[in-house]
Amino acid sequence: MSDARSIGVFDSGVGGLTVLRALRAALPGESTVYLGDTARVPYGTRSAQTVITYAKNNARTLVAHSDVKALVVACNTVSAVALDALRETVAVPVVGVIEPGARAALLASSTTATIAVLGTQGTVRSGAYARTLAALGHTGTTAAVACPLLVPLAEEGWTSGTVPELVVDRYLSELPARVDVVILGCTHYPLLQDVICARLAAARPGSVVVDGAAATARAVAEIVTPAPAAAAGAHRILVTDAPQQMATLGPAFLGAPVNMNAVELVDVLMTA
Amino acid sequence: MSDARSIGVFDSGVGGLTVLRALRAALPGESTVYLGDTARVPYGTRSAQTVITYAKNNARTLVAHSDVKALVVACNTVSAVALDALRETVAVPVVGVIEPGARAALLASSTTATIAVLGTQGTVRSGAYARTLAALGHTGTTAAVACPLLVPLAEEGWTSGTVPELVVDRYLSELPARVDVVILGCTHYPLLQDVICARLAAARPGSVVVDGAAATARAVAEIVTPAPAAAAGAHRILVTDAPQQMATLGPAFLGAPVNMNAVELVDVLMTA
Repeated sequence: MSDARSIGVFDSGVGGLTVLRALRAALPGESTVYLGDTARVPYGTRSAQTVITYAKNNARTLVAHSDVKALVVACNTVSAVALDALRETVAVPVVGVIEPGARAALLASSTTATIAVLGTQGTVRSGAYARTLAALGHTGTTAAVACPLLVPLAEEGWTSGTVPELVVDRYLSELPARVDVVILGCTHYPLLQDVICARLAAARPGSVVVDGAAATARAVAEIVTPAPAAAAGAHRILVTDAPQQMATLGPAFLGAPVNMNAVELVDVLMTA
Repeated sequence: MSDARSIGVFDSGVGGLTVLRALRAALPGESTVYLGDTARVPYGTRSAQTVITYAKNNARTLVAHSDVKALVVACNTVSAVALDALRETVAVPVVGVIEPGARAALLASSTTATIAVLGTQGTVRSGAYARTLAALGHTGTTAAVACPLLVPLAEEGWTSGTVPELVVDRYLSELPARVDVVILGCTHYPLLQDVICARLAAARPGSVVVDGAAATARAVAEIVTPAPAAAAGAHRILVTDAPQQMATLGPAFLGAPVNMNAVELVDVLMTA
């Protein structure tokens, strides 16, 4: 049995392209439709209620533009607060990035490990990683640090040198004295992975960095009926504003050129 | 003749409180109603069309909540692209921050001076300062540098030390070799004025820094019928999301405590 429908992916903006990249790598035959809500990015500083409203808008917009077989929430802030609301909004399976990230952190350590997450203010405030880890049997210490400057650094491409090192150092200084795993709890942070790993090795030697993108792709692979054998995936990108940002910012996040012929400007459906 | 109605002020978020601060200082008897579109901030990376739509939404929302006698656009990005549209949207005088800022720059120099503006991507892309300066008789060189990291630095309160110095240095390095005036073309930047002035003195000695907030307040004073003599201004603040940010971020921008009893969460009117 096969299913040629696309996998739908949405994010507040361009950051979720790091998750799309992992999805395309893990599932090369699958078609994808990505929606970036670039008219209202970022979500990390918004209230939970507003994030839920925007997430439902996005899900409805994506479903209106494409017949998808699953919906991947490629945004930690949305995954932290809106998965239940999204499961009531669309009729297809919904996969977020937090549970796969938490599973990956446990796989890299143990149920008694000290696990810290770096994320947006919204993700940190939600406590979603600690709650999910506990539900998966984790009994160790957890910590969460909001890192607001990492998103603009990643978007500016300022990912090496003294400034990102000092910024990362300041955020890492808020971690517990001993940490086993640090989860990159925002889709922008993989662009800063080198500097985060290097500074973490100095600040908290022996800890490992986990990014949930690959684990999310595996979670999606487990639940979707695959595309027909030998299918070549087709890929669309929808944005709610400023499509040209996909040409300038997109490649660093996608790890590949963005086909601008496949980028469409759409109106977001405001019905919540 | 007097007019007890409020002066309406709107901004994409909290940044415009630096303009509100100047307005309150210049016009202590006037009442004000400030709207911060915190559900959709920031505007600096949005397309001009989206900024115009949001600006019209905000103007209609403000007018729906208060009978205002003038509308002050306390956001450079909006002032750069949306003043004409706003003048068609509301029946009261509309004052932006760019013409007052440009006048202040000319007053601080001459019509042949080299004048540079630091601003958001949207403000820089619009060319609004250069166009306005030319209309005011300026014939010298102009330059504009987008400084995306200054907004998150200001909002994080990271306004002194090595990181803001290095970030400011990088942006100042994009200025022409000789500059007479640097305009702070974003309402967040006054929070970084000390570091900008200090690094500019090193990078481009002899140049002066101009912030348009006080000049905007003077421009408003010239066009509004004043409040009754001996009136004590009353002040309301409306936000479209996350009112508690006014308590955490507001005071640094307003230069005074924010009366949270006067802060109201409102729905933005989406009719464009």
